[in-house]
Amino acid sequence: MGVKSIADTNSCQILIQDTILTIKEENHIGVAIGEWILDLFVIRRLFSGPVLSSQQHVFTEKTLNNFIALGRPAWKEARTYLRSLLDKENGTLRDDLCLRERALVRQSDVEMHLPVTIGDYTDFYSSIHHATNVGEMFRGKANALMPNWKHLPVGYHGRASSVVVSGTPIRRPNGQTLPKDDSPPVFGPCKLFDFELEMGFIVGKENKLGETISIENAEDFIFGMVLVNDWSARDIQKWEYVPLGPFLAKNLGTSVSPWVVTMDALKPFTTENFPQDPIPMKHLVHEDPYNFDINLEVAIRPGCATKESVVTKSNFKYMYWTMKQQLVHHASSGCNLRVGDLLASGTISGPEAHEFGSMLELSWRGSKEIPLEDGVTRKFLLDHDEVIIRGHCQKDGIRVGFGEVTGKVLPAYPISQ
Amino acid sequence: MGVKSIADTNSCQILIQDTILTIKEENHIGVAIGEWILDLFVIRRLFSGPVLSSQQHVFTEKTLNNFIALGRPAWKEARTYLRSLLDKENGTLRDDLCLRERALVRQSDVEMHLPVTIGDYTDFYSSIHHATNVGEMFRGKANALMPNWKHLPVGYHGRASSVVVSGTPIRRPNGQTLPKDDSPPVFGPCKLFDFELEMGFIVGKENKLGETISIENAEDFIFGMVLVNDWSARDIQKWEYVPLGPFLAKNLGTSVSPWVVTMDALKPFTTENFPQDPIPMKHLVHEDPYNFDINLEVAIRPGCATKESVVTKSNFKYMYWTMKQQLVHHASSGCNLRVGDLLASGTISGPEAHEFGSMLELSWRGSKEIPLEDGVTRKFLLDHDEVIIRGHCQKDGIRVGFGEVTGKVLPAYPISQ
Repeated sequence: MGVKSIADTNSCQILIQDTILTIKEENHIGVAIGEWILDLFVIRRLFSGPVLSSQQHVFTEKTLNNFIALGRPAWKEARTYLRSLLDKENGTLRDDLCLRERALVRQSDVEMHLPVTIGDYTDFYSSIHHATNVGEMFRGKANALMPNWKHLPVGYHGRASSVVVSGTPIRRPNGQTLPKDDSPPVFGPCKLFDFELEMGFIVGKENKLGETISIENAEDFIFGMVLVNDWSARDIQKWEYVPLGPFLAKNLGTSVSPWVVTMDALKPFTTENFPQDPIPMKHLVHEDPYNFDINLEVAIRPGCATKESVVTKSNFKYMYWTMKQQLVHHASSGCNLRVGDLLASGTISGPEAHEFGSMLELSWRGSKEIPLEDGVTRKFLLDHDEVIIRGHCQKDGIRVGFGEVTGKVLPAYPISQ
Repeated sequence: MGVKSIADTNSCQILIQDTILTIKEENHIGVAIGEWILDLFVIRRLFSGPVLSSQQHVFTEKTLNNFIALGRPAWKEARTYLRSLLDKENGTLRDDLCLRERALVRQSDVEMHLPVTIGDYTDFYSSIHHATNVGEMFRGKANALMPNWKHLPVGYHGRASSVVVSGTPIRRPNGQTLPKDDSPPVFGPCKLFDFELEMGFIVGKENKLGETISIENAEDFIFGMVLVNDWSARDIQKWEYVPLGPFLAKNLGTSVSPWVVTMDALKPFTTENFPQDPIPMKHLVHEDPYNFDINLEVAIRPGCATKESVVTKSNFKYMYWTMKQQLVHHASSGCNLRVGDLLASGTISGPEAHEFGSMLELSWRGSKEIPLEDGVTRKFLLDHDEVIIRGHCQKDGIRVGFGEVTGKVLPAYPISQ
């Protein structure tokens, strides 16, 4: 019955979403259809196209890596077939109650998992508004952007082991901080705990060590996108990050959405690239638009509250560097990328104060309160706060949702004396 | 016959080495015995101790991860059994020609592989002489060490995908550099290509995300050590590393020795910890010595030369921070470490100029020539140079060798115009 009712919602409009995930118990790969999930393990033998007919085993895997590794022709073939399967005119699923009962499960009945095995995680710093805000806070307006920032997409290697799926609680870290410049550092719970509103893309093709990726071929290497919360301990970062960059301030956990929205599904939402001045070096230049109009928002739900408060609304289109440029830059040293690697955007801030992608910016380094519902305020995250990042595209009646990435802050462990 | 002759070399003195690796064709795990390797796949059924008798399958794996994950009791049991098996009084292997022929292979006949699957790779910066040298070059003598340096073992996340086994050629990267401060950056082959003499340890036990590791328990988490060459593009690093640390300057390749020397095998070479002033925070303090007297050297063999030149001799004992401190610091944020993770030391420089662990220091930022054999000199690495790092411990007639980690510099790919 439940299954019947969803079958009715199978409009192409929703199905264009073709977000993909892994689901409960045996970790099946699935596709989101409104409130339902189509279990690709169950219907794997229906994939009879030229690429997938001999590769149906990829839908028996616990992650998307082997499917992704088949390459763009397989991605397109799967998408095309799923759209036809879910078309109202197609009876394969619609008229087979038994198959539908096995193949369709409610999203609310399953536990989500990481959609890919992430070999390496890289985080960029590609929003000009964010980099400018942070630079202005710490170095003043005149020196806000570092000299390299407009010449290359600045990035660093993050920690892959602590990338977790949405819903995983995140423990406030203990760490070393320097409360005052002229006194010694102390060890204790992070006091400036923050979210970072980010997105990331999943690498879809490997290059060999020592080989680079040309900007012309970059698209073959980008499978799809996820929402990312790059939890950040600002006070720990400030003390530790010179000269080798953020370390413990970031590796306490990075949350991603379980759904990967494929680049094909995002095509209708392509928008102009952010204007770049100066023009980047030749190997980073591409004329085709590869920027995307993706609405993003962050909400905080305090532990004691039932109501959440949206604290910022931003958009992926504010990214200065495109994903193609990030990818090509990353491999320009000969660094080998592997299928499933996660390359995140860095905090995505818009130009306006209500579009900033972190509490560091929203509270302007703690100098002002961020208002929540019911008179509650925040400068940084408190214990038991839940952070919810959502994303969606909407245009001409088509909507593609990224779902959400959530995480609740657990109190730091007491330090043994 | 060949087998017979090695059997004679089976002295406990050599066997204490119990370095472990993976070898050719079917990637077997083995133990080094002089010029030979004992194939643990072949003799796996001989492990009849309380832990390993039911876990012999770990020796059918292609990497050491599952063996390591069994924990310290298994490591000790394997070592004890192998020592008894290779004792002259033990006839199991000595008198079974057929078994010996299958179980012993010449090192020269096999291809080495990475001994572990490395989930994440972290690089520290824990040699005070190296950090002081580099600081002095770039910031002057007064500000050589950053304020945080003596309070925590500074480190950063490296790239796991490009960690390769000894012998893998390393391609000189192209990258962005800033030739002069007042002119725009350029893209081209790295001009200041360097080695970094390092060692690393392999994590032997996992902690869960959000959980820390106490200094008292740290030893259970450290399986063994390898030699590491952290290839570095100095000019690329200088331009890119502010504010998020080294990225493309390092991810072009990191070479490790195929042999892992277990901490048990290193026990006899334990030496006093490096004096620390100020005393570190409580969670990082341990009184027991956990420093090791490991002789290290780096040789360069130019492409046109048959002779190699030793350019530096250093020692692991110069490390300011111990591996226990690195590990505990790394997990103090709740970052989860996994079995097989590689935590490297950072460049290991001694106090004297002939003990510096990089060409950056040996040539003092290119201000002087490093003499090689036959009147040849270097400031940084040239194409076709082979870099060879070796390590060994020696004391009271006992010698434990780490073998070597080598890599030859390939020319950068031409840049398309």
